[in-house]
Amino acid sequence: MQASEVEWTDIEKKIARTAFDKAYEREVKALLKQVQEQANKLVDVGELWRLHDFLSAKRHDIEGKYDYQYSVLLFVFAGLVKEGWLHLNELQGLDQDKLSKVAVLSRM
Amino acid sequence: MQASEVEWTDIEKKIARTAFDKAYEREVKALLKQVQEQANKLVDVGELWRLHDFLSAKRHDIEGKYDYQYSVLLFVFAGLVKEGWLHLNELQGLDQDKLSKVAVLSRM
Repeated sequence: MQASEVEWTDIEKKIARTAFDKAYEREVKALLKQVQEQANKLVDVGELWRLHDFLSAKRHDIEGKYDYQYSVLLFVFAGLVKEGWLHLNELQGLDQDKLSKVAVLSRM
Repeated sequence: MQASEVEWTDIEKKIARTAFDKAYEREVKALLKQVQEQANKLVDVGELWRLHDFLSAKRHDIEGKYDYQYSVLLFVFAGLVKEGWLHLNELQGLDQDKLSKVAVLSRM
């Protein structure tokens, strides 16, 4: 698949942006909750540094993953579907070819 | 002052170790509390990354600061007194020359 050659209509761009933002919001909300739970259970400095390591990894992951460029967006969506932050049906309205590609990639 | 030439008796070493551990315990306990308070107030990802930055800086600071080597210990104690993690009277039992040096350095 030459993802960079995929064309997006204005309607598809709007659907894509909404889905992208929704996935980001979900993942960040879950992360905030997880950090709060971990923080409230902290009893020693070793656990605090583990929380710090966890945050370092998550920040790197999230900042790299949410890359809103049309040339890579189908791959981004596939990853988000695979991880559970996005449902395929939230991409309804994209053309069938794009939906199929995301579905296939998300199962790889 | 040639701190590296300072000699420590066994009794002084015991006092020093106790004071050092006490300061560490205090600072870490305060940090855990601060992180828990900040975590519980998190409302968005920007604040989460600020908490991460804060933890990165604190970890670097603490891991560098608590250096238990007799050659630098008077400087370490002076810093801890200055920051409020150690009280001068918790070093009672060290010889007067060491106590004076810590007191002077802690006001610098």
